[in-house]
Amino acid sequence: MGMQVTILGSSSAIPANDRYPSAQVLAYENRLYLIDCGEGTQMQMNRYNVKKNRINHIFISHLHGDHYLGLMGLLSSYHLFGRKADLHIYAPCELENIIELQKKAALTVFQYNVIFHTLESRLNNPIYEDDKLAVSAVPLSHRIPAFGFIFREKPAEPKIYKEAINVYKLSVEDILRIKRGTPFYDQNGQLVPRASLVYPDKKLSSYAYISDTIYDPTLAHKLKGIEMLYHECTFGEDMKTVAAEKFHSTAMQAANIALKAGVSLLLLGHFSARYKTTEALASEARSVFQNVLAVEDGGTYAVNSGMKNEL
Amino acid sequence: MGMQVTILGSSSAIPANDRYPSAQVLAYENRLYLIDCGEGTQMQMNRYNVKKNRINHIFISHLHGDHYLGLMGLLSSYHLFGRKADLHIYAPCELENIIELQKKAALTVFQYNVIFHTLESRLNNPIYEDDKLAVSAVPLSHRIPAFGFIFREKPAEPKIYKEAINVYKLSVEDILRIKRGTPFYDQNGQLVPRASLVYPDKKLSSYAYISDTIYDPTLAHKLKGIEMLYHECTFGEDMKTVAAEKFHSTAMQAANIALKAGVSLLLLGHFSARYKTTEALASEARSVFQNVLAVEDGGTYAVNSGMKNEL
Repeated sequence: MGMQVTILGSSSAIPANDRYPSAQVLAYENRLYLIDCGEGTQMQMNRYNVKKNRINHIFISHLHGDHYLGLMGLLSSYHLFGRKADLHIYAPCELENIIELQKKAALTVFQYNVIFHTLESRLNNPIYEDDKLAVSAVPLSHRIPAFGFIFREKPAEPKIYKEAINVYKLSVEDILRIKRGTPFYDQNGQLVPRASLVYPDKKLSSYAYISDTIYDPTLAHKLKGIEMLYHECTFGEDMKTVAAEKFHSTAMQAANIALKAGVSLLLLGHFSARYKTTEALASEARSVFQNVLAVEDGGTYAVNSGMKNEL
Repeated sequence: MGMQVTILGSSSAIPANDRYPSAQVLAYENRLYLIDCGEGTQMQMNRYNVKKNRINHIFISHLHGDHYLGLMGLLSSYHLFGRKADLHIYAPCELENIIELQKKAALTVFQYNVIFHTLESRLNNPIYEDDKLAVSAVPLSHRIPAFGFIFREKPAEPKIYKEAINVYKLSVEDILRIKRGTPFYDQNGQLVPRASLVYPDKKLSSYAYISDTIYDPTLAHKLKGIEMLYHECTFGEDMKTVAAEKFHSTAMQAANIALKAGVSLLLLGHFSARYKTTEALASEARSVFQNVLAVEDGGTYAVNSGMKNEL
């Protein structure tokens, strides 16, 4: 399965118009990563058949309630479901105290380990890495410390053509050297072009989650080459001043970032309760950058395809 | 409008089967009182058209997450909606610290006053009173300090028959004395039966919310004369041992309390995620006590009628 994102909540601070607060699940190679966890996230997971137990890593952008108030409920449910696997949480440091205080009030000791990884202004990127994926954090300009997250597929080991093995009589050592990138010379001492030896590199999937932030043109550079970008879009351009005052962005500003970063697809989300529908915001963004989708709760968006598949 | 209760959540700890965690709204004379506030309460209020701004008093039974994790989100939304009216919260004392810590992490100062009233084992009942209604708390036996709540309509001022005013030529002083309960004698010195002077007393509405608790037969005495009782019913009788271990009650135990207290209607709620439907629990309870309803999220139940009106 390629990289895809399922939106569990796309409202800004006040849930309204059937939109829940921020939460989304990034799926990649049968692993799930939770990004933000607004109130009601576990109910949205039930509704959209998200396999909760596949989540071992949760990334919390900042500590405004609409981005994390569903976390304690989810952690409690994991406990009651008998979870044993470690759970890693990447978040600003105060979150640990909040969770601990709530556990203390409930006299609850979880049956599994929760491991907090603190996000601070001096980041040690990637903040998370496994064999398939690396996650970096990006400081955002918001009213309180906030972070965006970039998920990048890691290059797979180069795959050698079977024909090349036969033609050049490659030994195991030759193969290992070629995989590491060492130039290969045939029996006549001629350099063999790498393209004749290994399959072409697969295009690597990447996804960035940028919420919440004031319009920050310097982000474009940090997001260069990202395939799919989710950028907050709390307001329309007519609310530009209010957006700046509240450290939020407009649809057009999100599109500007997408354009400058050269992404393939821009997802808009984190909509103010004032917008009953989001078409106007999407078309505003399209006046700057063509490939835009305003997300919907329950929608799944695939990196590298721009397709939306309803669950 | 008579006294009625709208259920916003009827699940126990793990939300499942389209049931949200505990929350309900008691409506009486156009005033709304929120009882418990599990995760997602504000979304359920949106769904079932509850007029949030009519709520000035919130009663939190205990600090297990499924009874209060929706509170911070609701308080934040009130702030963002520009609420100015004071909000009173009746809850175990640790709740104030939890809310304060979350506000601090978000650098949020609410634009309205939140006034915490601490529930402790030594209660000063009623914990709340206005001109129409009084609320008492009842300590429950649960794993952590927990309280039930009893809402009682207050007797209205006696209303004098117009005919009596004419026949007995009652003065303003006579009327005030009769209203205070003083016996009245006619011009011949004959005692006039009170029933000839004042309208009969209206039956007073009352509602008790009992969740969460182990089966506690001593509750029946405290609930004597209550019209409508909501009693937790996490399990069926076959799970009696588990129920006791977890400080919860079964359907049959809830019915026993209802029977001994002589209530008119028993509402069952706080269902374990294991019960996809609740008919079996209701019929188990009916084997002990006839007038039983298993509540549904979104259902409204009127005191004194036993009728359920879908919103």
